[in-house]
Amino acid sequence: MIRNFSPKLFAQLSASDWLYVEDIWDPQTSLAHESLFTLCSGKMSSRAAHIEGQARPSLPAHYMHRLFDRSEALQRELVNMPDWSKLSIYSRRQPISPQTATVLSEYIRVLDLKQGFLAKHYIFEDAGGCRTELEIQKLLSRAYPNGGAIRVRIKPLNYSGLLEFENLIDATVTNFIDYPRFRVKHYEVREIRSLDGDGVAVDACTRDFQEAFSTQTAIRVSDEAGNELVLHRQYRPYGEVACEFFDLYVEEGKAYVIDKFAAVVAAHDGGDCRARATACLHNLITLGFDQLLEENRRIYAQFWERCEISIEGDKRSELALRLSLFHLMSTPNPHDSKSNIGAKLLHGEEYGGHAFWDTELFILPFYTLCFPEMAKRLLEYRYELLPAAIRYAAASDCVGARYPWESADTGDEECPLDTIAWDGTSEPCVVGVQELHVTADVVYGAYQYYRFTEDMDYYQHAFGEILFQTSRFWASRLEYDEATDSYGLSHIMGPDEWHEDIRDSVYTLELIRWQLKLALKYFREADLSPVQQALVVRLGISTEEVQDWALLAERIRPPHLNADGVIEEFAGYFELHDAVIEEFNEKGMPIFPQALRDYPREQTSIIKQADVLMWQYLFDEYFSMESKRSNFDYYQKRTLHGSSLSPSIHCIMGLRSGRPEEAYENFLRSALIDIEDKHRNTREGLHAAAAGGSWQCLVMGFAGLHLGADGRFHFSAQLPSSWQSLRFRLYHAGRLIEVHVEGDSVTLYCDAETPVHYVDSGHSKVSSPWYERPVAEFGGE
Amino acid sequence: MIRNFSPKLFAQLSASDWLYVEDIWDPQTSLAHESLFTLCSGKMSSRAAHIEGQARPSLPAHYMHRLFDRSEALQRELVNMPDWSKLSIYSRRQPISPQTATVLSEYIRVLDLKQGFLAKHYIFEDAGGCRTELEIQKLLSRAYPNGGAIRVRIKPLNYSGLLEFENLIDATVTNFIDYPRFRVKHYEVREIRSLDGDGVAVDACTRDFQEAFSTQTAIRVSDEAGNELVLHRQYRPYGEVACEFFDLYVEEGKAYVIDKFAAVVAAHDGGDCRARATACLHNLITLGFDQLLEENRRIYAQFWERCEISIEGDKRSELALRLSLFHLMSTPNPHDSKSNIGAKLLHGEEYGGHAFWDTELFILPFYTLCFPEMAKRLLEYRYELLPAAIRYAAASDCVGARYPWESADTGDEECPLDTIAWDGTSEPCVVGVQELHVTADVVYGAYQYYRFTEDMDYYQHAFGEILFQTSRFWASRLEYDEATDSYGLSHIMGPDEWHEDIRDSVYTLELIRWQLKLALKYFREADLSPVQQALVVRLGISTEEVQDWALLAERIRPPHLNADGVIEEFAGYFELHDAVIEEFNEKGMPIFPQALRDYPREQTSIIKQADVLMWQYLFDEYFSMESKRSNFDYYQKRTLHGSSLSPSIHCIMGLRSGRPEEAYENFLRSALIDIEDKHRNTREGLHAAAAGGSWQCLVMGFAGLHLGADGRFHFSAQLPSSWQSLRFRLYHAGRLIEVHVEGDSVTLYCDAETPVHYVDSGHSKVSSPWYERPVAEFGGE
Repeated sequence: MIRNFSPKLFAQLSASDWLYVEDIWDPQTSLAHESLFTLCSGKMSSRAAHIEGQARPSLPAHYMHRLFDRSEALQRELVNMPDWSKLSIYSRRQPISPQTATVLSEYIRVLDLKQGFLAKHYIFEDAGGCRTELEIQKLLSRAYPNGGAIRVRIKPLNYSGLLEFENLIDATVTNFIDYPRFRVKHYEVREIRSLDGDGVAVDACTRDFQEAFSTQTAIRVSDEAGNELVLHRQYRPYGEVACEFFDLYVEEGKAYVIDKFAAVVAAHDGGDCRARATACLHNLITLGFDQLLEENRRIYAQFWERCEISIEGDKRSELALRLSLFHLMSTPNPHDSKSNIGAKLLHGEEYGGHAFWDTELFILPFYTLCFPEMAKRLLEYRYELLPAAIRYAAASDCVGARYPWESADTGDEECPLDTIAWDGTSEPCVVGVQELHVTADVVYGAYQYYRFTEDMDYYQHAFGEILFQTSRFWASRLEYDEATDSYGLSHIMGPDEWHEDIRDSVYTLELIRWQLKLALKYFREADLSPVQQALVVRLGISTEEVQDWALLAERIRPPHLNADGVIEEFAGYFELHDAVIEEFNEKGMPIFPQALRDYPREQTSIIKQADVLMWQYLFDEYFSMESKRSNFDYYQKRTLHGSSLSPSIHCIMGLRSGRPEEAYENFLRSALIDIEDKHRNTREGLHAAAAGGSWQCLVMGFAGLHLGADGRFHFSAQLPSSWQSLRFRLYHAGRLIEVHVEGDSVTLYCDAETPVHYVDSGHSKVSSPWYERPVAEFGGE
Repeated sequence: MIRNFSPKLFAQLSASDWLYVEDIWDPQTSLAHESLFTLCSGKMSSRAAHIEGQARPSLPAHYMHRLFDRSEALQRELVNMPDWSKLSIYSRRQPISPQTATVLSEYIRVLDLKQGFLAKHYIFEDAGGCRTELEIQKLLSRAYPNGGAIRVRIKPLNYSGLLEFENLIDATVTNFIDYPRFRVKHYEVREIRSLDGDGVAVDACTRDFQEAFSTQTAIRVSDEAGNELVLHRQYRPYGEVACEFFDLYVEEGKAYVIDKFAAVVAAHDGGDCRARATACLHNLITLGFDQLLEENRRIYAQFWERCEISIEGDKRSELALRLSLFHLMSTPNPHDSKSNIGAKLLHGEEYGGHAFWDTELFILPFYTLCFPEMAKRLLEYRYELLPAAIRYAAASDCVGARYPWESADTGDEECPLDTIAWDGTSEPCVVGVQELHVTADVVYGAYQYYRFTEDMDYYQHAFGEILFQTSRFWASRLEYDEATDSYGLSHIMGPDEWHEDIRDSVYTLELIRWQLKLALKYFREADLSPVQQALVVRLGISTEEVQDWALLAERIRPPHLNADGVIEEFAGYFELHDAVIEEFNEKGMPIFPQALRDYPREQTSIIKQADVLMWQYLFDEYFSMESKRSNFDYYQKRTLHGSSLSPSIHCIMGLRSGRPEEAYENFLRSALIDIEDKHRNTREGLHAAAAGGSWQCLVMGFAGLHLGADGRFHFSAQLPSSWQSLRFRLYHAGRLIEVHVEGDSVTLYCDAETPVHYVDSGHSKVSSPWYERPVAEFGGE
């Protein structure tokens, strides 16, 4: 499968189960591959548009954390920055690319997940029969996360002659290139310039906030022995395209190496971004491609040491998970608490790079258990933006803090009030207004982080303030009903976005109930540490206010169950037109029942994702096996998985309901979502929540990890029948833990030594049905 | 053949023998069609890239007379200005264009030569089967030569829905788009802006001289009944692309009309170019598309009244000639004496838009005899640039005035000292240094203009000064040889550019001889008019100096003849390796003889074009039929027609040598050069000299017009055997003359009335061999 590469590169490549491969150039799948092969340095990303340019379709994009702009768009979105990756190559005036080849042979593109580089090989034949072998490596540097490097090894196979090159920074790129209605350019070019005859630069700034950034690039060329070749370079300012033209006389059968280095620095990096980009570029050149690769290898090895997974018996899922984890580990900035992770990572333009509840509930557990320092940054982000959340609550006629449904750099609500389709049809969009649960999700995620890591620093400072302000928000937002003397919420929406403007979303209310009770516990005077006491004083928190919240929590309306113990997703859900899903499309995704086709979706019981299962997942220990099974069986048949967040939860809850086959089916829906482009939108970026959710399937699902009330890790494993074993790693309390699962047997190795802890397998330890438990217990962990 | 257009447009179209048609969209020929369908207003041009964009390959270009820039290029060249013609149209996000159609049917594109507009029709089917009918008309306004207009009539055939549009000015365009080595952007964008929400503008300036220009565009949309539709327009600045986005809900079966207007004004137009462009745009909108078309129709009718031609029996040649004349009449600015006509007109980027001797010897006769006011502007251009020619002579260590081989706006020599091929190989280029004859060609062309028009104003002022300064140049440049007591020139080149660095080019020396003798006559004291006397005083011309020139002319070395009376092109030509052409390629063009393939071209007798025949053409009356035939027969077999200037002269001299078949063959080589893309470079622009040369074939060749020493027009017609008749028009001394030729009979109609003048046909009146005539007679017309 892996073929054609030069001996040097071939020797560099990891074993094939670490290689994600594209072995044919196909315009139909090229946009999805641009997402799948995106590289990220933790600071910035580069989609995998072919650096030679020319191949179409293409959505070249380069994003940087924290660099957002609105301009004509409906929301602040990640700025598609100047494309520094372009290096045009011409064979007798004909642009070399996979698409322009008369004959394209031996094409292969490989993402080395273990080492964090992309490699490509093909042979290009021009219209005159000249055959040129190309091998291109690309990396985004972990050593210098403002830098990237590309190595082109080029060899004329049957001719000697002149090749022409353009080292480019293309600052004409826009967002939404192929959506004319949405196309927008989020930056202004201030200057295009030559770097004193050795490289080119584009200085630009975002349009709204005028944040400056500088993109700089230079090349080095050598023969295969490594002797640098002196070139005549000509600087060419093509408007907003900075170009450095050079040519190279190449001899038949000899290979030549062109190394392109690029640095991108924004004002938020501190200092003069022009000078800092120049310094970074200099560092990259000094270190050189081989050493940058070596550094990446070293750092990615450290990353994988923390989170390596393997699945004996399901190599495709293993590769899919490794690919997901590669992107998850690559994306966040471990040194920046002002950025988060967008729903499509930093890999595509959908959702504008905004953080959703996806962060706290889907991807945070992975970081918490493998990269707690990254998890902390993500949570600090919420704390940084607490002032914006306080403003948002006030603007919603409430007090306290309300987190936005979509969060960018300012923390303002980025979810627009209208959805405009590509064809211009506009519909009111209420998810930002109604999907209140995100505020409780933030608290839940942060609390889980604390429970797993026992990070008292975060818990006592940031978490306390968030908990206080968001609880205050809920207290002001809950609606009192005199007739029943109870609290509920109307005109809201749960995670199931196909039922808008509903009342008493059980998921939302139960999370609020939990958090209000948690607040009571957190702020119980007797237990307050000195740090917490200082917080209480600073925020002017009164014992009475917190106690009022607990009283209020007790009067939140309880869920409604039917005779089978099925929990009603929201008030009135059981009265909707009902039918079950019986058909599936060619990608294995459920199809809306024919029986309901005459009804608008919102008038049916068909849901996008199952709020009830999500709730049960988060508070598993309060539900009996019977309750979980009833609810799983009921909702599984009514869930269309219109959200990429849905299948992973169905996998885990399927396992916990004794439905292993459905569980595995849903695991595959989640794990393969992007490599099989199941939602037909991988072109817009990768599904971060599905990546994190799939990891949770392995760890919380198949291995059955849960954190007991005793603060210890418990496992109750059940592998898919085709899996011989599952292994994964965790990083907990400064120690590496390797978990080996075979059948239902779990063995833990600590710091790669002998087993230190053995846990009997077995299912949920709590057997009493949840609804028999006193309400007070919900928040009582 | 003409089909599919809407009834309204169909009714507008001229008869089919006035329509140049492209009836299939073919990427292989699209670049040539971009040249062939170029429109020109006299001030500016617009190549026929499909305005919808997307179609590839494409070399969109918009040029303006006098707007040159050098920057990184090797010479000052026409600036490819921002593309104002673009109007992107999207059917469900899919760009509509001939290339992007799933099904493309009924495609036709027509240039209406009589009325000066381009019309196109096709039906576009998108990937979902939605069929949209498009009809697009384009014109460059003769009423407002800074303006252009495009009308798009669009009709959804099988759907109702939303179409999306982008009214664009694309200021990312460069020169030499598909030549990476030469690609250069000749302007800087200063501002992209909205025109107060109704249209967009790009303000830019050339890079070297910072000449400002402004491009502005706006659209109007109406239903088919002409009711204007109100649109929501959104301004979008995409870097150097100014965009105005709008959409339109279209109903199945109904047609909608989008009119795009654009104005381009440069600083050299006078006043504030931004304000003037806005005013022009306003005028265009006020007049409206229909009226602009009507104005073009009126003005092109006046043009054609002056120069209409028809050929019974050869409709293909007739159409080719009409196409050539359309472009010749469209191109020059009748109000500007600071611009000339490039070798590729204003229709493409080859030769940078520079004027060559092509102007005076190939295209000037057409203007002189049909549009003398335009001819005068072209000659005034040389007079305007006489100071630069004086500088050039001084820089060449001479005195007087030397015209540059390639002339742009400054009059400096634009011919580079090195030719760089697309692949970077560089060769010294001596044509600019050595092809001195251009200076005599200017004088010859100007003198012919005077003889035909009797324009005493030009003759007494500008011509006198040019004649004086250029003669002074020759006197200082000619090299004296003591051994033979004669003058000659070494290290020069004649029109045949395949023999460089030669000595005593007969063409060059004989033109010099002629002009020096003409100077003697011109400045003969006794004949000087008061105006001329003033000139003599102003320039300090001494009788002695002029008489010295005449003496010098008599000592210029005479040509060398062989035993057959064949004149040797230059000293030593007869000693070169000799063979004759025997093979022709599939386009009917001669192939270099196999027998000579081991010799470098310059060591053979094979020539690019025949200097001797050219000389005989210009001074026909001094050669006997035998001399012409000997020389024709000799050089015809050795001429590869590597220059597009060559075949027309071979046609005319073939006729004058009694070689009618070869004459017709060469006529077709000239007339069809672009429509058959004989030189495979029509993509780079049209061959202006071939266009003018083909017209000379008709008028000086087949009709045999020559101006007698008596100042009267003489005809000696001989039509190709397949032609029943030839008709053409001349405009002479304020009167329209229509010439009808049938066989060898010529009838003249003056001002479209009854015949006024009848001329017996008959061949050259001068039968004595040229070399028997005293040298003195050469200048003695």
